Amino acid sequence: MKKLLIANRGEIAVRIIRTAREMGIATVAVVSEADRDSNAAKYADESVVIGPAPAGLSYLNHEAILDAAATTGADAIHPGYGFLSENAEFARKVQAAGLTWVGPSPDAIDLMGDKSRARQAAIDAGVPVLKGTEGALDSAGDIEAIAVEIGYPLVVKASAGGGGRGIRRINSVEDLRSTVEVAQAEALAAFNSSDVYFERFVTQARHVEVQVFGDGETWVHLGDRDCSLQRRQQKVIEEAPAPGLPDALREQMRQTSVELARHSKYVGAGTVEFLYDPVRQEIAFIEMNTRLQVEHPISEAITGIDLVREQLRVAAGEKLGYTQADVRFEGHAFEFRINAEDPDNNFMPSPGRIETLELAGGPGVRTDFGFSAGQTVMPFYDSLLGKLIVWDTDRDRALARAARALEETEIDGIKTTVPLMRRLIALEDFAAAKHHTTYLETVPGLFGALV
Amino acid sequence: MKKLLIANRGEIAVRIIRTAREMGIATVAVVSEADRDSNAAKYADESVVIGPAPAGLSYLNHEAILDAAATTGADAIHPGYGFLSENAEFARKVQAAGLTWVGPSPDAIDLMGDKSRARQAAIDAGVPVLKGTEGALDSAGDIEAIAVEIGYPLVVKASAGGGGRGIRRINSVEDLRSTVEVAQAEALAAFNSSDVYFERFVTQARHVEVQVFGDGETWVHLGDRDCSLQRRQQKVIEEAPAPGLPDALREQMRQTSVELARHSKYVGAGTVEFLYDPVRQEIAFIEMNTRLQVEHPISEAITGIDLVREQLRVAAGEKLGYTQADVRFEGHAFEFRINAEDPDNNFMPSPGRIETLELAGGPGVRTDFGFSAGQTVMPFYDSLLGKLIVWDTDRDRALARAARALEETEIDGIKTTVPLMRRLIALEDFAAAKHHTTYLETVPGLFGALV
Repeated sequence: MKKLLIANRGEIAVRIIRTAREMGIATVAVVSEADRDSNAAKYADESVVIGPAPAGLSYLNHEAILDAAATTGADAIHPGYGFLSENAEFARKVQAAGLTWVGPSPDAIDLMGDKSRARQAAIDAGVPVLKGTEGALDSAGDIEAIAVEIGYPLVVKASAGGGGRGIRRINSVEDLRSTVEVAQAEALAAFNSSDVYFERFVTQARHVEVQVFGDGETWVHLGDRDCSLQRRQQKVIEEAPAPGLPDALREQMRQTSVELARHSKYVGAGTVEFLYDPVRQEIAFIEMNTRLQVEHPISEAITGIDLVREQLRVAAGEKLGYTQADVRFEGHAFEFRINAEDPDNNFMPSPGRIETLELAGGPGVRTDFGFSAGQTVMPFYDSLLGKLIVWDTDRDRALARAARALEETEIDGIKTTVPLMRRLIALEDFAAAKHHTTYLETVPGLFGALV
Repeated sequence: MKKLLIANRGEIAVRIIRTAREMGIATVAVVSEADRDSNAAKYADESVVIGPAPAGLSYLNHEAILDAAATTGADAIHPGYGFLSENAEFARKVQAAGLTWVGPSPDAIDLMGDKSRARQAAIDAGVPVLKGTEGALDSAGDIEAIAVEIGYPLVVKASAGGGGRGIRRINSVEDLRSTVEVAQAEALAAFNSSDVYFERFVTQARHVEVQVFGDGETWVHLGDRDCSLQRRQQKVIEEAPAPGLPDALREQMRQTSVELARHSKYVGAGTVEFLYDPVRQEIAFIEMNTRLQVEHPISEAITGIDLVREQLRVAAGEKLGYTQADVRFEGHAFEFRINAEDPDNNFMPSPGRIETLELAGGPGVRTDFGFSAGQTVMPFYDSLLGKLIVWDTDRDRALARAARALEETEIDGIKTTVPLMRRLIALEDFAAAKHHTTYLETVPGLFGALV
């Protein structure tokens, strides 16, 4: 690998460029017209404008990106996260053009992108899945008995659904038959198939996940993460390792995740996501993400392993060169997503000129930002400015360090989530790791009046 | 410990405040009138102006500092490095005022501050010392034989000297007797004692050192460092661990340093400095510094231990709680001293307003700075703006990361040593760890025309 094109923007483009530079790999940033003066363009060896601002005309434009690779002589493409990172069609085009795709095979992307096939792969690999019906429900049959066996509350889901669509919750037998019928009708209308199935509904669930990595011959995990602090299913703060997970479950989750990667001959970085039910003390597979995740730095912090370096090495055909026994875990890390949003005004995006950008420093602090002072946050993209990552020897210390680092973080000119983060880490339930994915909705007065 | 007064300024004051905040200890910054708007003043819970700019009237003013402690109700004083950090008289005054002195006992400071007593303590503890004559030379005796036994080149030193004063090099027997006589006359004039002694002169020596720590009952080392890249005896770049040191010597150096700390019942952080002679493959004691060192973050980087936290804990009477076996070493770290100086103009200080201060981020990068953009560097103090510390899994990677991080570092408005640092890490001899304390003087065209 001599020259890497980064098909992304913002902090993740900067992140990837950093490691490529350290490895002596030349870098090409592809940027929209709006991102001409971005830090990705500044840090890369070359940059190519590939189209106007809406992502569809630039960062999602397969041909424009492949053209840029051809023009600059790039021999590899890293998609980052989001955008084209889990687009198997694009991955195939990259490979067909004779370029190295920094990611798992298009087939692996396809497999994990298909909800039912991914669930079956998980079952085959011994990964625990959420209790539910395997095939489509026969609404003329004894669905009451099936529901009792799964246990209330449960959800009825469209088999052809995905991304949260076609899901209805059922709390008791009274609602059962009528809700199934409504769901079937909705599924037919929306997905052209009335097939629906039951799945256990976990209240107060924790979102936990395992970072896996493989070269096609050796597979390892780089520990687990907890991403339960969410606002409307968007991760807000992540941490590694997952706190309060019973040892046996943690081990099961890690081992079966590696099995799933091995089972699918997975190459590169992937994340196996689970629901953890603290009441039933059970974990269940949600899905596998076939890309680098936003929160990968906290796994880097507790292992000392540079995940982008590993991605680039393995994509270039190198072998891992180590096994699970060589992976050492040390301490605890948090990641804070710093967005250009106004938490006191319904999280409205807050584009504009960044007047001051003073980031935290000192021991155990890492900052991954896509912006500098004096630059302008555009309204065309997601609002992530960057991430603050803190590490310390244990969770309490890491939280104290986070409080200190968030105090030091000073961003003026636009509204950001920094003040909210300061409030979140002061919440006793979060400090005690008693939070769950819908916890933030239960905290009175946390967000501004409009929420 | 409830409230800590930091008797220092710049990056080290900020460094200490950071950890104190994380530990929930309130902080008091004492500042000169010139430092009213410094980051130390900004980050501390309280700040007290203790006098005008020349350090003698503020940062070195015992009474003003003790008054500030009394006024604010501080119960402990951390001296940082430099200024009063190795002033036993001040340490005694702090203790006499009923305050906690964050540092070793005044007696330990005295012991290690006295060159000949420190050397004797080292000998008693089994620390190898530089070959030389123990007592004063009898110039009427057979000094030729003594010189041959020590080996040329050697130096003749005033027994009462120190800090590099009263030292003359002797290359061969031709210069021997005359140089000794000159040295004796000079010593008598300068120190009121004509006592001089011989010591082996090491050419192309490496400066290596061991970070030790103790609580009065348990002593550990936190690994070694190499600080050989120097300009006029000022450290420029430091790294940990020391590269290219034979295993047996490294072990001897670490173990005997711990012995010296144990021998002197040392409490707190200390550094035992050695000369390493790569030709003779020998190490020899130089001195022990009884304070936190500028380069302490590289030891933190390879051990994960926060040295300031350890200092504060032990000063407050806590025990270490771990032993040498618990200290884990991982990877390699470099520290770059970023000074407000013009390397192309004889390292003239470059005070002025900092227009841009854009520091590096991403994996394995730590920044410890005492300044922010928009602040003014005053001409009254040393020129250290801050430090860039990088860590990676091995030395080559850490160097590549350093190159990347130094590229990202952008400081405008004043001249800094950043461009010089970029040139230094590109030197092949440095990359190959073949440098020594006078190496930089041998590199043609490294500094500007005036040097």
